Amino acid sequence: MERKTLLTHCSDEPGLIAKITNICYKHQLNIIHNNEFVDNTCGHFFMRTELEGNFNDAVLLEDLELALPKGASKSLVDSSKKKVVILVTKEAHCLGDILIKAFDGSLNIDIAAIIGNYDTLQPLAEKFDIPFCHVSHEGLTREQHEAKITAAIDQYAPDYLVLAKYMRILNPGFVAQYRHRIINIHHSFLPAFIGAKPYLQAYERGVKIIGATAHFVTDDLDEGPIIKQDVIPVDHNFSAKDMAQAGRDVEKNVLSKALNKVVNDNVFVNGNKTVIL
Amino acid sequence: MERKTLLTHCSDEPGLIAKITNICYKHQLNIIHNNEFVDNTCGHFFMRTELEGNFNDAVLLEDLELALPKGASKSLVDSSKKKVVILVTKEAHCLGDILIKAFDGSLNIDIAAIIGNYDTLQPLAEKFDIPFCHVSHEGLTREQHEAKITAAIDQYAPDYLVLAKYMRILNPGFVAQYRHRIINIHHSFLPAFIGAKPYLQAYERGVKIIGATAHFVTDDLDEGPIIKQDVIPVDHNFSAKDMAQAGRDVEKNVLSKALNKVVNDNVFVNGNKTVIL
Amino acid sequence: MERKTLLTHCSDEPGLIAKITNICYKHQLNIIHNNEFVDNTCGHFFMRTELEGNFNDAVLLEDLELALPKGASKSLVDSSKKKVVILVTKEAHCLGDILIKAFDGSLNIDIAAIIGNYDTLQPLAEKFDIPFCHVSHEGLTREQHEAKITAAIDQYAPDYLVLAKYMRILNPGFVAQYRHRIINIHHSFLPAFIGAKPYLQAYERGVKIIGATAHFVTDDLDEGPIIKQDVIPVDHNFSAKDMAQAGRDVEKNVLSKALNKVVNDNVFVNGNKTVIL
Amino acid sequence: MERKTLLTHCSDEPGLIAKITNICYKHQLNIIHNNEFVDNTCGHFFMRTELEGNFNDAVLLEDLELALPKGASKSLVDSSKKKVVILVTKEAHCLGDILIKAFDGSLNIDIAAIIGNYDTLQPLAEKFDIPFCHVSHEGLTREQHEAKITAAIDQYAPDYLVLAKYMRILNPGFVAQYRHRIINIHHSFLPAFIGAKPYLQAYERGVKIIGATAHFVTDDLDEGPIIKQDVIPVDHNFSAKDMAQAGRDVEKNVLSKALNKVVNDNVFVNGNKTVIL
Repeated sequence: MERKTLLTHCSDEPGLIAKITNICYKHQLNIIHNNEFVDNTCGHFFMRTELEGNFNDAVLLEDLELALPKGASKSLVDSSKKKVVILVTKEAHCLGDILIKAFDGSLNIDIAAIIGNYDTLQPLAEKFDIPFCHVSHEGLTREQHEAKITAAIDQYAPDYLVLAKYMRILNPGFVAQYRHRIINIHHSFLPAFIGAKPYLQAYERGVKIIGATAHFVTDDLDEGPIIKQDVIPVDHNFSAKDMAQAGRDVEKNVLSKALNKVVNDNVFVNGNKTVIL
Repeated sequence: MERKTLLTHCSDEPGLIAKITNICYKHQLNIIHNNEFVDNTCGHFFMRTELEGNFNDAVLLEDLELALPKGASKSLVDSSKKKVVILVTKEAHCLGDILIKAFDGSLNIDIAAIIGNYDTLQPLAEKFDIPFCHVSHEGLTREQHEAKITAAIDQYAPDYLVLAKYMRILNPGFVAQYRHRIINIHHSFLPAFIGAKPYLQAYERGVKIIGATAHFVTDDLDEGPIIKQDVIPVDHNFSAKDMAQAGRDVEKNVLSKALNKVVNDNVFVNGNKTVIL
Repeated sequence: MERKTLLTHCSDEPGLIAKITNICYKHQLNIIHNNEFVDNTCGHFFMRTELEGNFNDAVLLEDLELALPKGASKSLVDSSKKKVVILVTKEAHCLGDILIKAFDGSLNIDIAAIIGNYDTLQPLAEKFDIPFCHVSHEGLTREQHEAKITAAIDQYAPDYLVLAKYMRILNPGFVAQYRHRIINIHHSFLPAFIGAKPYLQAYERGVKIIGATAHFVTDDLDEGPIIKQDVIPVDHNFSAKDMAQAGRDVEKNVLSKALNKVVNDNVFVNGNKTVIL
Repeated sequence: MERKTLLTHCSDEPGLIAKITNICYKHQLNIIHNNEFVDNTCGHFFMRTELEGNFNDAVLLEDLELALPKGASKSLVDSSKKKVVILVTKEAHCLGDILIKAFDGSLNIDIAAIIGNYDTLQPLAEKFDIPFCHVSHEGLTREQHEAKITAAIDQYAPDYLVLAKYMRILNPGFVAQYRHRIINIHHSFLPAFIGAKPYLQAYERGVKIIGATAHFVTDDLDEGPIIKQDVIPVDHNFSAKDMAQAGRDVEKNVLSKALNKVVNDNVFVNGNKTVIL
């Protein structure tokens, strides 16, 4: 008996749940958990079905191909670890949380490598025996720097890139290589405080709550599909620096939770939004 | 085109989702939203299916009867307002919130009557033109008092009883008449601080968070299936009285949210727990 | 024995706490609770001191005048109810919450009148025997409309105006009449989604949390000093309409909590921020 | 110019704030931040005053001795790192979070040693070059085991012991050696689910929120003064194991935040409660 997860999305039409679950039943696959969502504004159907049984993947997918609307996306994924490359700058908290969670098995990932535009976090990477690649941006154009990063990444062929407080903007050309596969943590409750120094912006606006946002990276700065957000209360006693310090726990928790959802195949991208099933 | 919700629960077996959704498809009913849950510890299956189309209720339920395991529970409910009777003592906040929400249509209920063991809230009931029935407990045994309350309630034949800070314990005999139809708000984060004066207990224990719990009433005090809980932070500055004051908003919000889930048929009772779909 | 609260703010200098608390001690006033804050970016000192004893207000304030820096603001307030006028449009939830809280004494206010640009909420006002003044904006310029509202308000000489989902923008001329005395609830987590239809904006951005913000009204739309914010989680299942419905509880809770802080003299305005002591 | 924090507590009487702040003023010490609290139920006064200036500690404390009630506690602490010893069993998440926070300077501690009753976490300790001491409990009475742990601890003379998911009960004799200096994380929202397997208890009760509690350890199991609590929502989909997994982030965050407050001298013990200033 194996466990696999069937991910389906296609344009909506009547009977989709019946068709898919019938095929699973015909294959003697038991449904452990099923979640579906229809976005009525665009008429699109999403379903995630955890299955248990003996799988004939090819026949199952073929049966689905015949039953579902033309162009339907369907995939059968197992629970093997996803390979990630992590990009960092100088701050340790997000990287540290992911390292501990990979170490104790809370996150279903293999960290293939860590790439930093500074070498500040090399000692932390080395504690966990993970290759650290220092790719300084100094003296390079953004394109040159990203070309070197791409070269460093591509030897590992990762499933996902994680920007764990990587403090540089990425060019569309770089982003396009890893479409819907780059996860960033932004240190504000987006869309509030887009761009640089969000804690300083939050301090100056006098907000009573600060937050963090994990999202897929797209061409537009801080505008990609949001995966997870969380907040904490602050008050007049917090300086911008205090907010940044207090925000660290939110940042790391939000990034790790978002990453967990992504590597467990819970997250569908739906235009500029996510559907999390 | 009508909208109805199909509620199904039965012992679990393979193919249930396929069977139910197929029958819906055959009846040309479109699934607007579907949620299911299997409790593996007791092997029980729950499903809530929002449907749209032209319903032939009798045939649909007959088809389900043939397809589902013996003893399966299935019902088709529409979205008409549920009739409730509210029991109160002296505090206005929970009753007030329900009155405002019934007034502006946020809660899908008709308040048939309000019954108080004091007459404190009679003026509030009268503002909203709702019959208020004062059934004092003074000089009566608990059984005598409850017999009078039962008589007051039964002329209205309500779907649900709501204990909106009704501060008296109910006998098993009373509770048995309204099985899984009495919703209570307890002013603590159950199972912490069961029984009387939970805020005083919380103050004396020095907790940093207080809460409220909405639950179905069963024979055991504060032990029934929990529907909704929420909390707020407190600190050393809060006296027991401050906690009670601060807790009012949590109590009313938790009770109203639980009631909303119940009257929209989202709540299944599963032994001493709830499944909310 | 009386209780009063001393509110002091002035430019910061060494010894202010010692000077103020000494004067209170000399007056045989016992400090029940004391909170202070220094904003180091602008060098300003704020203190709120709850006192108990026999007060000679004139002498106490004179002693403070001599001890504190030139231009210091100091006032002694008692706990009598603040008079408010509430402005509304069509939605009942914020008004309803304030009405219930004024009714049961949870909010230390007298509601002098309710003014609506529609008459939708007149029946609700009348239930609580509060004068309702319908000032339609139809056929009037903004200036004409506000002149009529000002006339309606000024007969009551309120301490504060509360915009309980009053859905019209106010001119600077109107705002200037009630400087730091108009409290608004905005149905987003400011500064995200400034302006119209914030729930639609939130839906379209695909955020995972929505919120509400209570703030003092200044000339710049949704840019005044923030008093209170709170949030709730949402997900892909929420339409813009669902968000608006779910947001109602946050809106009303945030507005009532902000109003409670204001009428209990906990809130100092500090430039475009608040200090809440 | 130095920064130190003055911690004072004593039986309450009029004029305490004035007396203490006057002495600071006389010493030309500027108050950066001041917080005080009076527990009216026991008539006790607590104050925490952050000061800046040139300190003559001996004279300052002598002046306070003369001014304050007999038996007053007063101490002047600087911001040097506190020395801690951490006790663990097998779970890595709480230890990991503290290690990362000590590594990046977010927690003002030196970790002198880690002691485990299993050697599971020895590799993690070694990554951070922290002495790991394996003190197995196998074949030993509780007293024998604790004697060995005491011996291991005492060579380091730590300021605090941190029980980072140390899964054994401690004898009163052991606890008495480190009065108000042992910080434990309990994996429930105390006082709900005292004792073993709180997540299983929570699952069986069907609660909708789970939590964690950091507290000082006293003789009574899970009954010591609470420092910090936090919660997360759960629902019927969570098995006891899912709750345990989800609870990890809350546990580590609560423990780290409590530890941060303790090592920054924000926490006073007040009977069986804490006052956090």
